Amino acid sequence: MSQKPNLPQGTRDFGPLVVQQRKYILHTIEAVFKKYGFMPLETPAMEQLNTLSGKYGDEGDQLLYKILNSGDYFKKLTAHQAQAMGHEELDKTILPSFDNSIEHLDAKKSLPFIAEKGLRYDLTVPFARYVTMNRNSITFPFKRYQMQPVWRADKPQKGRYREFWQCDADIIGSESILNEAELIKMYDEVFDKLSLPVIIKINNRKLLSALATYIQAEEHFIAITVAIDKLDKIGQQGVSDILAQTGLSSEQIATILRFLNLSKAADPIAAAEDMLGQIEEGKLGILELKKLQEYIQLLSPINTIEYNFTLARGLSYYTGAIVEVQANIGNFKASIGGGGRYDNLTGIFGMPGISGVGISFGLDRIYDVLEEQKLFPVNLRTNDTKILFCYFDEATQLKAISLCAELRNQGIAAEVFPDITKKIGKQLDYANKLEIGYACIIGETELNSNTLQVKNLFSGEQYPMDITSMINLLQ
Amino acid sequence: MSQKPNLPQGTRDFGPLVVQQRKYILHTIEAVFKKYGFMPLETPAMEQLNTLSGKYGDEGDQLLYKILNSGDYFKKLTAHQAQAMGHEELDKTILPSFDNSIEHLDAKKSLPFIAEKGLRYDLTVPFARYVTMNRNSITFPFKRYQMQPVWRADKPQKGRYREFWQCDADIIGSESILNEAELIKMYDEVFDKLSLPVIIKINNRKLLSALATYIQAEEHFIAITVAIDKLDKIGQQGVSDILAQTGLSSEQIATILRFLNLSKAADPIAAAEDMLGQIEEGKLGILELKKLQEYIQLLSPINTIEYNFTLARGLSYYTGAIVEVQANIGNFKASIGGGGRYDNLTGIFGMPGISGVGISFGLDRIYDVLEEQKLFPVNLRTNDTKILFCYFDEATQLKAISLCAELRNQGIAAEVFPDITKKIGKQLDYANKLEIGYACIIGETELNSNTLQVKNLFSGEQYPMDITSMINLLQ
Repeated sequence: MSQKPNLPQGTRDFGPLVVQQRKYILHTIEAVFKKYGFMPLETPAMEQLNTLSGKYGDEGDQLLYKILNSGDYFKKLTAHQAQAMGHEELDKTILPSFDNSIEHLDAKKSLPFIAEKGLRYDLTVPFARYVTMNRNSITFPFKRYQMQPVWRADKPQKGRYREFWQCDADIIGSESILNEAELIKMYDEVFDKLSLPVIIKINNRKLLSALATYIQAEEHFIAITVAIDKLDKIGQQGVSDILAQTGLSSEQIATILRFLNLSKAADPIAAAEDMLGQIEEGKLGILELKKLQEYIQLLSPINTIEYNFTLARGLSYYTGAIVEVQANIGNFKASIGGGGRYDNLTGIFGMPGISGVGISFGLDRIYDVLEEQKLFPVNLRTNDTKILFCYFDEATQLKAISLCAELRNQGIAAEVFPDITKKIGKQLDYANKLEIGYACIIGETELNSNTLQVKNLFSGEQYPMDITSMINLLQ
Repeated sequence: MSQKPNLPQGTRDFGPLVVQQRKYILHTIEAVFKKYGFMPLETPAMEQLNTLSGKYGDEGDQLLYKILNSGDYFKKLTAHQAQAMGHEELDKTILPSFDNSIEHLDAKKSLPFIAEKGLRYDLTVPFARYVTMNRNSITFPFKRYQMQPVWRADKPQKGRYREFWQCDADIIGSESILNEAELIKMYDEVFDKLSLPVIIKINNRKLLSALATYIQAEEHFIAITVAIDKLDKIGQQGVSDILAQTGLSSEQIATILRFLNLSKAADPIAAAEDMLGQIEEGKLGILELKKLQEYIQLLSPINTIEYNFTLARGLSYYTGAIVEVQANIGNFKASIGGGGRYDNLTGIFGMPGISGVGISFGLDRIYDVLEEQKLFPVNLRTNDTKILFCYFDEATQLKAISLCAELRNQGIAAEVFPDITKKIGKQLDYANKLEIGYACIIGETELNSNTLQVKNLFSGEQYPMDITSMINLLQ
């Protein structure tokens, strides 16, 4: 019985060249993380659903991948219950409540019946869980990095996958704005090393909060944030429409738009201070932005820093500085990284009052930009092999194996074509397709001689040499 | 609302030191993979369930983690069907067949209703799927390595986890026994580099097949293999009991035990040839073992090679050489790696007649042995930071930040303690706990001088130097 295999929608295989390209990005990011003192952490792909649920908003909750419990997840239900539930909708039937009463079917409460684990949705919540569980053994401030895949049941489209990698760096247990500045400098260094020009947009959530106070619409703070977050996609008119539907007056909306347009001022921070500096939250936000600006000037990043009040960031747990990185080349304008400060992320796990700040690199989107803009180094190869040994028969194969072993003992990546075949052309074909630089053909002559013919497969030239010269050439 | 978070059973967090230790193992393995010409591949964590199901035997199927479909997975069912199904067992109720008839409830067929994806169980089946899907673009023989986590809903116990890493190297599209020999040499080199003595056990499935023919019990081949596979755990008496229950005569059982004991002969391969050399499969198996032995002698591994006929390997897809690695130190005798040749793994996906051979390293078990035997290098650190800059106030902090930036520009990992605090002791405490080697305290004096005091935190000694000397010291 044969079947035509395929992949789940939104997931991808990464063949040899793509893995090397992805590793090039990962190693670039990791080197910067380490240079700034961050330490690695890895958490499991599966988390308890109660760790994940409720952390990403309603929309996020719907995108969580849930894992079926193993074993007989329905054994607690009686046949009578099953029968009685026949009249209910079936999606409720499979989610019976624990209290044996079909009157109180509650899908959310009873999900543990069939699924109590899920795949991680990001790296920040698992990090907060880890910090809470290990608070007594961790040295604070704790600087950790984490580079792992996450999963979201999102609608697949260009630049959006169901399995994708995040590369996060967070500092927890320190309130210093120096952390924000260093994280922004890290963004700058990584994208500089990747030769990818970017714009690093910076805002502070406290200003958005002050704006809501300023227009006397504090109860609409979240709605205002969500609307501003959509500005790039729907424009000022679109944002106005949403805000009007929320119930804001045209005067309030005009004030919001006026604030957003301060981003274009010669000195946006001073302009925002003029407008919101009298409000407590506004004063704090301005103070934080000024301190951040001072630190950033000291670290002098190469890429464009932009204080931009239209930046809102979707996630609700941010409380201070927020940052987002956009590629500044070609057509790919979507965010390739983002982050911010959160004052109470571990609070939900029972560890309140710990402030943290972090950034995330979106590996897959960075990959897409580098690929589209042809920014990968040209010397990336699928393999490390320096030379292929070719031969004609059993005797010459044994000689080839011995020579290859000598090279490997010197740390040189080398191969012997495995199958005995008279067709040298087929063996050289293998070397050419894998872009192996040299070949050494072992024939009768080489069996009883220390002189080997080494062929440069790019130039076609061939040189006689002994094994020692070969080692020197390839090392 | 706060909750006490925990981890799913059988999964673990890896803190900074453990990640470094695991990376030490992974990099050691990967360096050998590359030296032998293997190329990286990565496949998604999720596979279609029909890719995974039926590949690992009934027991394996039960250990697959299944992922709930997102959205309303029951919308295709009518209320009438739901009602009618009230009399059925509930685990069937949630798995209704597609054909709208409640007469033909078939749990396996209708699983796609609620789950059509699963987490990968190993790396071999995804590899076979990848090869089948990309057969037209792959250069054969294809040597790929893959180092990724796999998931099994197994009962957690010492050395057995629900999320664990496999590191696989396979060659597909080559029938040469040289591949087996090189893979065995790779085992040897990796464990030599890890300073972990091992026994590498080798057998050939064709001999087990010939043995079944020899005792005229070919129909019991799988049962015999499964029984032999348990020898280590239950001993010869246990194996005899199982074989007797299978229906073998005491004479047949005695012959099997006689064959197993040939492993102890001075020349096990010659002894096996005496016994099974007249049977077609036996002749082939002996020929393959002799060829393998010849290649292995040429490559001269350091660790113990043992031709051992008690080795059976559980997985049914092996058809030729099989290999297993056991740690040969301390109490931890369990397998830390295994592999073998499979002649038709891609056949099930519609690509028959392609032979492959591969080995796998069990990262987590290797970790457990190295940890138990204290074989990790002592110089592994949680971070790369060479020096911590300490300071007293805003002015000295700015100086510290500038100096730290100079070091980082030279590629030196360095940190500034982020929070302004008069307590230098607290800052040095941070450096000591993170085993950072040097500290540089910036005070009033250093603000207007090019001379810095660099303190060696291990010896306690302090030296005056300028920034250039500091760079030379730390590089």
